[in-house]
Amino acid sequence: MKKVAIIMGSDSDLPIVEKGINVLKEYEVPFEVHVYSAHRTPVETAEFVKNAKDNGFGVIIAAAGMAAHLAGAIAANTVIPVIGIPVSCKNTGGMDALLATVQMPSGIPVATVAIDGAANAAILAIQMLALSDDGLYAKLVEARKKGTEKVLAKNKEIEEKFNK
Amino acid sequence: MKKVAIIMGSDSDLPIVEKGINVLKEYEVPFEVHVYSAHRTPVETAEFVKNAKDNGFGVIIAAAGMAAHLAGAIAANTVIPVIGIPVSCKNTGGMDALLATVQMPSGIPVATVAIDGAANAAILAIQMLALSDDGLYAKLVEARKKGTEKVLAKNKEIEEKFNK
Amino acid sequence: MKKVAIIMGSDSDLPIVEKGINVLKEYEVPFEVHVYSAHRTPVETAEFVKNAKDNGFGVIIAAAGMAAHLAGAIAANTVIPVIGIPVSCKNTGGMDALLATVQMPSGIPVATVAIDGAANAAILAIQMLALSDDGLYAKLVEARKKGTEKVLAKNKEIEEKFNK
Amino acid sequence: MKKVAIIMGSDSDLPIVEKGINVLKEYEVPFEVHVYSAHRTPVETAEFVKNAKDNGFGVIIAAAGMAAHLAGAIAANTVIPVIGIPVSCKNTGGMDALLATVQMPSGIPVATVAIDGAANAAILAIQMLALSDDGLYAKLVEARKKGTEKVLAKNKEIEEKFNK
Amino acid sequence: MKKVAIIMGSDSDLPIVEKGINVLKEYEVPFEVHVYSAHRTPVETAEFVKNAKDNGFGVIIAAAGMAAHLAGAIAANTVIPVIGIPVSCKNTGGMDALLATVQMPSGIPVATVAIDGAANAAILAIQMLALSDDGLYAKLVEARKKGTEKVLAKNKEIEEKFNK
Amino acid sequence: MKKVAIIMGSDSDLPIVEKGINVLKEYEVPFEVHVYSAHRTPVETAEFVKNAKDNGFGVIIAAAGMAAHLAGAIAANTVIPVIGIPVSCKNTGGMDALLATVQMPSGIPVATVAIDGAANAAILAIQMLALSDDGLYAKLVEARKKGTEKVLAKNKEIEEKFNK
Amino acid sequence: MKKVAIIMGSDSDLPIVEKGINVLKEYEVPFEVHVYSAHRTPVETAEFVKNAKDNGFGVIIAAAGMAAHLAGAIAANTVIPVIGIPVSCKNTGGMDALLATVQMPSGIPVATVAIDGAANAAILAIQMLALSDDGLYAKLVEARKKGTEKVLAKNKEIEEKFNK
Amino acid sequence: MKKVAIIMGSDSDLPIVEKGINVLKEYEVPFEVHVYSAHRTPVETAEFVKNAKDNGFGVIIAAAGMAAHLAGAIAANTVIPVIGIPVSCKNTGGMDALLATVQMPSGIPVATVAIDGAANAAILAIQMLALSDDGLYAKLVEARKKGTEKVLAKNKEIEEKFNK
Repeated sequence: MKKVAIIMGSDSDLPIVEKGINVLKEYEVPFEVHVYSAHRTPVETAEFVKNAKDNGFGVIIAAAGMAAHLAGAIAANTVIPVIGIPVSCKNTGGMDALLATVQMPSGIPVATVAIDGAANAAILAIQMLALSDDGLYAKLVEARKKGTEKVLAKNKEIEEKFNK
Repeated sequence: MKKVAIIMGSDSDLPIVEKGINVLKEYEVPFEVHVYSAHRTPVETAEFVKNAKDNGFGVIIAAAGMAAHLAGAIAANTVIPVIGIPVSCKNTGGMDALLATVQMPSGIPVATVAIDGAANAAILAIQMLALSDDGLYAKLVEARKKGTEKVLAKNKEIEEKFNK
Repeated sequence: MKKVAIIMGSDSDLPIVEKGINVLKEYEVPFEVHVYSAHRTPVETAEFVKNAKDNGFGVIIAAAGMAAHLAGAIAANTVIPVIGIPVSCKNTGGMDALLATVQMPSGIPVATVAIDGAANAAILAIQMLALSDDGLYAKLVEARKKGTEKVLAKNKEIEEKFNK
Repeated sequence: MKKVAIIMGSDSDLPIVEKGINVLKEYEVPFEVHVYSAHRTPVETAEFVKNAKDNGFGVIIAAAGMAAHLAGAIAANTVIPVIGIPVSCKNTGGMDALLATVQMPSGIPVATVAIDGAANAAILAIQMLALSDDGLYAKLVEARKKGTEKVLAKNKEIEEKFNK
Repeated sequence: MKKVAIIMGSDSDLPIVEKGINVLKEYEVPFEVHVYSAHRTPVETAEFVKNAKDNGFGVIIAAAGMAAHLAGAIAANTVIPVIGIPVSCKNTGGMDALLATVQMPSGIPVATVAIDGAANAAILAIQMLALSDDGLYAKLVEARKKGTEKVLAKNKEIEEKFNK
Repeated sequence: MKKVAIIMGSDSDLPIVEKGINVLKEYEVPFEVHVYSAHRTPVETAEFVKNAKDNGFGVIIAAAGMAAHLAGAIAANTVIPVIGIPVSCKNTGGMDALLATVQMPSGIPVATVAIDGAANAAILAIQMLALSDDGLYAKLVEARKKGTEKVLAKNKEIEEKFNK
Repeated sequence: MKKVAIIMGSDSDLPIVEKGINVLKEYEVPFEVHVYSAHRTPVETAEFVKNAKDNGFGVIIAAAGMAAHLAGAIAANTVIPVIGIPVSCKNTGGMDALLATVQMPSGIPVATVAIDGAANAAILAIQMLALSDDGLYAKLVEARKKGTEKVLAKNKEIEEKFNK
Repeated sequence: MKKVAIIMGSDSDLPIVEKGINVLKEYEVPFEVHVYSAHRTPVETAEFVKNAKDNGFGVIIAAAGMAAHLAGAIAANTVIPVIGIPVSCKNTGGMDALLATVQMPSGIPVATVAIDGAANAAILAIQMLALSDDGLYAKLVEARKKGTEKVLAKNKEIEEKFNK
């Protein structure tokens, strides 16, 4: 199976990114985690990305905050799908990272998820890989069903509490 | 090859969406275009989406403006990848559609592109399909190279004009 | 009397929603509370809503955060009035939920109240039911009068403290 | 049948408001249109509102721009439902009017619709009146069905154009 | 000397307003503090304001949050100057109150100060009264001078610490 | 009578400012118009402002756009009341000018009016001067009454058109 | 004298950038203009930047819109000063480009000027070069003086028109 | 070597500014720290700035919050480069300070860095001074290399933890 690369712009993004790592583990999708910065390690970032396909990666997830260039810088160096996680900061709540990630120019898309939305980034990566992997697709269907059941269980609890 | 479905919430979104249609044509990726509204045709939208995989679709692109629920409503009914195009309107410039498309809850991702970014939505869909299609991948590489050359040509023009 | 349905997108919205529940209790308006998600339980949500009128509901209140589709998804499946409570989150302060709730397309209104404004959602529901219920109307007049008196009492306190 | 009052803060709001007037005409719901300003005619505004119920009004729709106090000033003087239409202006796109209309304090709700959303304001008013008027309810169901059919017709057109 | 009226929309605004009260005390400007709500006590608010001039008030300061109508509602009932303090709240940081206070329509100005800027509201009121009160003017000059000196003293401290 | 100074940061602001000039003319309040820039003529600006009181000015109105420092720079050099008009520009709609004008630090207030609100700036200035000028006060009352009558006349027109 | 490099992300930015080019011509500062895209020509961009110092460049000005990564991508590859011009677009007015340009992480500054502020970018570049060039410094002083005189001339015109 | 002046608008900005001071110390660049307010000490601010060049300063860094005029007020009085640090506050997260700092009119640039970005302000100042100081330039290259190494070290840690 193709691997997912998770790249964060700074190791301080790990608490956010970890939610995505856990999803990949649950689905038993092979992945690697890296810290590469668009600004502090531009050479290493580009090198990793250019070799990503040959190294077995199918999708790259990039998490960065503020003037979040990481996902775009990665997308500039590959044509495999790149998923961007805008990471929030105290001052702007992540609106800067969201706009810097999503407003990409024509030709170089970044599949952007919600601010701090690392779990969804991982699920989106899995959905892409599942396009040619029926086992993975079945797991997604299963997980979705469980998500539904969890809400319905919560609904039952609430109904019992309030609708006697 | 798997097909791409492009769904717009209103036929008034066609001028935006058409840029994406043209990209899919260029790449000779099979696609269908539909008008389904999350609010005006919720039943038909859900039905189309639930059958999408069996009907040969690999990716769904959804374009909608204002309280843009379409991409999310589609994502709620399938686990194949859903790409959202937030469509701008005069009053808010599309910030409402962007937030309503990208800020999805955990478990139901929407791969969001730039406001009015239909061309990138199409390219992203193609990148996903190219994960298991080397010919398509080669076309993406080719197109990227052409994009680079176009900028370099423009650069040459500008250099000649200003840097004698 | 017709019932009010309060639907929250996630049980984590309960602390916000509870302020509305308390208002409905005070007014002795019959109500039910449910957890249905536009994205995780789209089928169950639609089913509940489609049967809402026949099951005696006059108004539906929907509370959701982020890309808050719940109220819109409900409004898409019924023509009884739907009231939307945009729920705040840390990153955006609820601006995403406000826009995703209020900016509905023509034909499918959602009566939107303030961010986290669950008490007002309940009062608005009661105002609607009071259109054909003079007793309820009288209670609203009474409560309004009490609201006025409470401010005037506070005014007296402040006046005594500062205006000797 | 109870009447709907449409109040605009300035006659310059008429082009927006007219979309709501047309909806009320279509549904043959009795209505009155007035120009009252929260700031320029506070006395007359309050007087109209205080007598609204006795004069046969069931719902009041208020349209205003900028620091849009009109809906709130009306809601302060009645407990019948008040619907607010935030009217856009060039500089802010109506974000000022939206916030000034929707962010009401606890106890005094305003049912807010989209920026410039006059048609939805009228539909919402009709939904409220339909709570005790089955004929009106049937018309809403009919109109919703027509809305669905219109989208499906557009869908057919688009499908024929693109999906040969 | 004419008095300053400070009106807050809710007694919960007192911690903010108190900074303005302290300024008025320092300047020995006569003042009164009241709690009147544009929405919960519209009649009493209007009554107070209409009599304000006859009761010896020269300026009215109004503090309110969210859809902050108070200053505008006051300005609608008098032609003496009205100063508005937009009060912050957790979700919006006071942007709603700022826009609802400052974006007044032509003819009914509100002199708006910074979000939570109660001290400046008081100073502005004093500046207005000082237009015909040389003693008060002299105090303003004096206070300004002291403000300058305080900064220069801080500057000295910092200079000593860093610029040895 | 004390004079009003209207200072604009650039002569390109004249179309906005002229609405305020017209108001001052109507009220027969003596005034002067100047172009002084906080950034291009800081010395001349400060000099004008420091002498303003001695030269018979009671109030200063400052209009500026973008990083609108003018009102603040004026307020820093006088303790007579300063009124700020944030001037809109195409890119930001004047939100930059509004924040740069209104968010003044403690001690140095600027009485801010709406974006492009030059007429209200003039009325506010007149309200301040009217604190010690009963004739001017009477004119304000008269104008307010006319404003009310104008709305009521418009109301009559609209009522005749729609409420046959 | 060291040269200034002006790099725009797309030749469509030329109308904005030209204002900066004209300034550099006026000051007779040697410059070059290029079109390099952070996303479409990442390799060429990096190569140009890495050689910039050796090729005689002292400062680099970068103009880009939307998710404006260009200035940051340049700053990541050099330690000579980089000036960023956020270029506006219709939907967001340039707020996306402003945040994507200015919110750089610690260690990699971009000297950001106003949205579409190309003239100021050029002046800022000249100010930097003038740190070691007294002739250039003298030109800046001269230009500033002329700027002052221009405003004073405009002031005279306006004074004559309005203050007879 | 030319000195860097760091001016903060209030000594409460010191915790932010200190990060910049530390950078200047690390680079052994001579600097002075001052507290001057655009509004409370306009005369002293202008005086300091006008003499700055003669007193050996090459660059001025200005830190201020809210309606942050300080950098602009400084830039108005000198043609040496001025760097602006927008300082955040609780209510607006620093968006007011950012816009008030960066949106300067043509002719008077302020090199703006990120909200609270004091370290980058210092590095930018050093980059400017390094234009004519090869030793300083070498230090910048060295620091950049260390920044890269630090990220690569973090990358190694993370790789070891997750990619066994």
